[in-house]
Amino acid sequence: MMEFDLIDAIRARAGRRRGDVALGIGDDAALLEVPAGRQLVACTDTMVAGVHFLAGTAAEDLGWKSLAVNLSDLAAMGADPAWALLSLTLPEADGGFVDRFAEGFVELAAAHGVALVGGDTTQGPLSITVTALGTVPHGGALMRGGARAGDAVFVTGTLGDAAAALRLLRDSGLGTRASGEQPPVPQPILFERLSRPKPRVAAGQTLRGVASACIDVSDGLLADLAHVCRASGVAAEVDIEALPVSAALLAAFDKVACRGFALSGGDDYELCFTAPPERGAEIASAFERLGLRASRIGRIGTGEGVRVLDAEGNPIDTLPAGWQHFATSRAGSE
Amino acid sequence: MMEFDLIDAIRARAGRRRGDVALGIGDDAALLEVPAGRQLVACTDTMVAGVHFLAGTAAEDLGWKSLAVNLSDLAAMGADPAWALLSLTLPEADGGFVDRFAEGFVELAAAHGVALVGGDTTQGPLSITVTALGTVPHGGALMRGGARAGDAVFVTGTLGDAAAALRLLRDSGLGTRASGEQPPVPQPILFERLSRPKPRVAAGQTLRGVASACIDVSDGLLADLAHVCRASGVAAEVDIEALPVSAALLAAFDKVACRGFALSGGDDYELCFTAPPERGAEIASAFERLGLRASRIGRIGTGEGVRVLDAEGNPIDTLPAGWQHFATSRAGSE
Repeated sequence: MMEFDLIDAIRARAGRRRGDVALGIGDDAALLEVPAGRQLVACTDTMVAGVHFLAGTAAEDLGWKSLAVNLSDLAAMGADPAWALLSLTLPEADGGFVDRFAEGFVELAAAHGVALVGGDTTQGPLSITVTALGTVPHGGALMRGGARAGDAVFVTGTLGDAAAALRLLRDSGLGTRASGEQPPVPQPILFERLSRPKPRVAAGQTLRGVASACIDVSDGLLADLAHVCRASGVAAEVDIEALPVSAALLAAFDKVACRGFALSGGDDYELCFTAPPERGAEIASAFERLGLRASRIGRIGTGEGVRVLDAEGNPIDTLPAGWQHFATSRAGSE
Repeated sequence: MMEFDLIDAIRARAGRRRGDVALGIGDDAALLEVPAGRQLVACTDTMVAGVHFLAGTAAEDLGWKSLAVNLSDLAAMGADPAWALLSLTLPEADGGFVDRFAEGFVELAAAHGVALVGGDTTQGPLSITVTALGTVPHGGALMRGGARAGDAVFVTGTLGDAAAALRLLRDSGLGTRASGEQPPVPQPILFERLSRPKPRVAAGQTLRGVASACIDVSDGLLADLAHVCRASGVAAEVDIEALPVSAALLAAFDKVACRGFALSGGDDYELCFTAPPERGAEIASAFERLGLRASRIGRIGTGEGVRVLDAEGNPIDTLPAGWQHFATSRAGSE
């Protein structure tokens, strides 16, 4: 038995309730109301110390990120997040860790109106599993399989920042920060992208009825766009000059490395989506209202696979060196 | 990255589909249809090696049990199970383990018509988290908080078998069995109760509209009945002579030990429920149709806490020695 209860700690912090939670934490299961005319959207994701995050990662960042990666999956479906269940496995009773974990978790949950409705706390090697539940208007979900030849390919935000931050952390031999301290790297913007990814929930909602296919970029753009191509039975071309990279990334690495991170870095949690090119103006104005960049980075064609094209439109056969990233194993509901 | 995919292995084995799965494994999230007029019921539970099960436990038993403990929570709500998400963390790629795990998981899932709709496979210390989702007619869920003074207390099946099996395993210095081998203890019935608990799904469904409160016995009868009392604002008395214990348990331990296991042994996964005494005949005939024992073991009164009474109706102050069981940490949605 643990001598503390994370679930209680989070419940105490998450003051407000949702009207659609008929019964929350404290019984054998939660009772939830799915509105008529909507479908339930469900995903789960596990983060293990040393695999998905560096040992010593700040507890508040883990709390945030464990929910963020799941909300990102809901966002990729165009869903409205509603509820979450949380299983935390901790090596030893550590009330401080739990408090800080709860702080990060609740901060993101509150930002998206998500209610924690169940979970458990277990003793064992550090690991976090979150299940996120949301809803979407019937038939309105975004899926991977809808991309069609002729569609344009878009991506939100910027790519590669998180992978670059991880590289900096590893190269510095750091990879930890004590709670409340400043990040040990001179690129706090990059570090923030790694430790506090912002799930593109509003973007996903905006794309309902607009995007033909959508996925969140968790394994890297090339890998995730390849999932879309496989599911849709199409091929994609990506214009390397069109990849959106941040000023912070460009300041920290040379252009070749930046492109490597942008193409193959994991943990971006941006949305990659496809849409008919004639909807480009509509998409541009919708994202302007959101205050989020949406870059057109390529096109869908017939065939299979993803090709990267240089400025002259010639395929780039080999990836730049140095794009290796921290391996994340996300299978199944990835 | 893992070199195998458990989720695919299970998907391949689980041939049939549910009509209410609009989109299953393979996208960012699953899309599910909750029927009109029903509430969603959600719970999650984690099992960690060395905490919730002995190292070396057969993979097929882990597959079964990781789902069973969650279906038991749904059963305690009177829910109809529908879908599950599974996160498996495994130290190393082991296709044999995965196959056997999938076998046990699918066997139980098929028995209850549960569809696996998401999950992931991760490398790390052995741990399993399952989220189970079901539905219940609106307002029909069983809860912990409905027990009223004057209600009778019932329990399904028999108590203490799993805890006794665990004791035998530990005393024997065993605690492992290779797949396909016979259990190493001479009490296969007890061992089966520990390794393959049967969630009382049909019993929970039968109790809708009948029981005033319900909980599954996972932490031990006394602990779980105390949860009901706390949630309901009542007290309970348990007649020690009325506790249902199996012939297998009586054959393996003396009476005092049997009662200790029955009162405080964990991992029973029976249902403990309360109902007005005048519904006793109705309950008896309903359980006869189910082919499951339902024993009346006590009564609800005013006040707080759980008292155990001997044959003369006198409170037993101290628990029998030797009832310590394998600690299971189940908090939050327990």
